[in-house]
Amino acid sequence: MIKVAFLGLGVMGFPMAGHLSRSGYEVTVYNRHAEKAMAWLDTYKGISAPTPKEAVKDADVVFACVGDDDDLRQVTLGESGAFSGMKAGAVFIDHTTVSAKVSRELASVAAQQGLEFLDAPVSGGQQGAEKGALTVMVGGNDKVFHRIEPIIAHYAREVTLMGPVGNGQLTKMVNQICAVGVIQGLAEGLHFAKVSGLDPEKVIGVISKGAAQSWQMDNRYKTMLAGEYEHGFAVDWMRKDLEIILNEASRNGAQLPVTELVEHFYADVQKMGGQRWDSSSLLARLEALSEKN
Amino acid sequence: MIKVAFLGLGVMGFPMAGHLSRSGYEVTVYNRHAEKAMAWLDTYKGISAPTPKEAVKDADVVFACVGDDDDLRQVTLGESGAFSGMKAGAVFIDHTTVSAKVSRELASVAAQQGLEFLDAPVSGGQQGAEKGALTVMVGGNDKVFHRIEPIIAHYAREVTLMGPVGNGQLTKMVNQICAVGVIQGLAEGLHFAKVSGLDPEKVIGVISKGAAQSWQMDNRYKTMLAGEYEHGFAVDWMRKDLEIILNEASRNGAQLPVTELVEHFYADVQKMGGQRWDSSSLLARLEALSEKN
Repeated sequence: MIKVAFLGLGVMGFPMAGHLSRSGYEVTVYNRHAEKAMAWLDTYKGISAPTPKEAVKDADVVFACVGDDDDLRQVTLGESGAFSGMKAGAVFIDHTTVSAKVSRELASVAAQQGLEFLDAPVSGGQQGAEKGALTVMVGGNDKVFHRIEPIIAHYAREVTLMGPVGNGQLTKMVNQICAVGVIQGLAEGLHFAKVSGLDPEKVIGVISKGAAQSWQMDNRYKTMLAGEYEHGFAVDWMRKDLEIILNEASRNGAQLPVTELVEHFYADVQKMGGQRWDSSSLLARLEALSEKN
Repeated sequence: MIKVAFLGLGVMGFPMAGHLSRSGYEVTVYNRHAEKAMAWLDTYKGISAPTPKEAVKDADVVFACVGDDDDLRQVTLGESGAFSGMKAGAVFIDHTTVSAKVSRELASVAAQQGLEFLDAPVSGGQQGAEKGALTVMVGGNDKVFHRIEPIIAHYAREVTLMGPVGNGQLTKMVNQICAVGVIQGLAEGLHFAKVSGLDPEKVIGVISKGAAQSWQMDNRYKTMLAGEYEHGFAVDWMRKDLEIILNEASRNGAQLPVTELVEHFYADVQKMGGQRWDSSSLLARLEALSEKN
C-alpha cells in the first residue's frame, strides 16, 4: 500500500487529495489552518497531521499545492518542513504554480537529502480538480516521472513530462501568457461591441467559429457580458503568475509587451476590489475607464 | 434570370464572383487592372466591362470587394462609378472591409438615388472564398437582406444581419480586435517557450485543450514556429483594418489599449519587409527584438 501525504487543502488541493483517498491510497493531510483539514476528514478517509514534517514521515510520495514561492519554501524548508521529515528515496511533487527558480532550488536541496523532486503545476481550475480532469505539466527525472504518473492520473486527464525540473513551471507560464492575450483581446472586442451599439451575443455567434475563436470566447463571454466574475481563476492568482512570468522574462530576455501591460491591468482590477474576481474581469476595467471619459 | 455585377477581382472577389457564375447568374465583372478580368473570363462564364458604370447597367445586384475606403468611393462615386449607372431599385452589396462611416455615407447617397446599400464584410480568408465558406456580416435593411441572402449563400457558410448599415463593418472590427489579442498572446507564449528552452510543439500539445486555446493556436502555431508567413491574411491588410478600428474607437470612446499597441507592432513588421506576411508574423518581430538585446 502506497502511503502519500498532501500538503495544502485549498480549492485545488482539497479535491485532489480526495481523489487519492478514494483511489485507495493511505492519505495524510496537512493544512496551515487546521479547520480545512478537519473538513477534509469529514468528507474523505485519511488522517491529518499538525505539521508538514509529521504528515510526511511515512509517505512514499508527498504532494504540495500551496500559495506561492514563500509558502512552498515554508512547507518544505521551514521549521517542521517536509524535507526534514521525508524518508530517503521519497518523492516530493509540487503542484503549486511557482517560479522555475524555486523549483530548481528545492530540487537541488532534495537531491542533497536523497529525495526526489518534481515540479508539476496544473491547469483546469477548481472544476478540473473536482472532476479529476486536470492537465499536469511536469519537470524532473523521467524514471521518477514514470513511477508517479499513474498516481497523478487519479486527478488528471493529461500528465506530461516537459523536461528537467523547472520545465513544468515554464510550460504553465506559456499557458498564462497565451491566455492573458486572449482575455484582453476578448475584453476589448466585447467592450467595442457594446459601445458601438451592437448586440454582443449576436456578434459572438457570428465570429466564434473563425480566426478570432478562443476557449475564453466560448466559455467566458456570457459571464463577461453579464458582469459576473464570482467564479473561475482569481485575479490575485493571475497577477501572482504574471509577476513570476515577468521575473523569468527579465532573466531569459523574452519580449512580453502585452503580458507586461496586462499585468498592470490586473493591478487596476485589484484596486477596483476585484481581487477574487475571475481573470476575465479585464472587461470591467475597460468599462470603468470608458465611463470616466 | 438575375443579373449581377462584381467589382474587384482580388484574391477574395475572384472566387466569389466565380461561385456566382457557376451558380447560374449572369455575371458581369470589372477590375481596375483588366488582366485580372481576362483571367477570370478564362476560368468562368460571364462578360467583362471597362468601367464600373458599364458593368452595373443591367444588374439587379452589384457586389464590390475592393481595397479600402478610397477604392470603394472611387468605384461607387468616382467618374464612371457604379452609382451613376445602376438602375432604380438595384442593390449594392459591399464586401470590402471599410469604415462604418463610409458605409453610412454611401448608403445615404444610394438612398437618394433610389438604390439599396448593404455593408457586408467577410471573414474566412482566401480559402473561405475559394471553398464558398465565408462568414458574412451584414448591415442594412432587413427586407433587402432577406432578398439577397440566398445569393450571398453561394459563397458563404453563414450570412447574418447585424442591424442597420455600418453594423456589418462594426462586427468585423470586433472580430479583428479579438484576433489580434489572441495572435500577440500566442506570439509571446511561443517566443517565451523558445527562449526558455522548452519544446514548443510539446507545450502546444499540452496547453491547447484548456483556457489558452484559440483558433490561432490550433491553426497557426506550426507555421509560426517554422517562421513561414507566406500565406493567410497579410499584415498590410490587418494594419489597414486596425487603423479603421482605432479611428472608430476614437469616435465611440472604446478603450482598446492592446489593439492600439499591436497596430504599432504590425507597423514594425512592415518595416521588417513583412507587408505580405500572414498576420501571425508578430512572432518574427519579438524574435528580432530578442536577438538585438
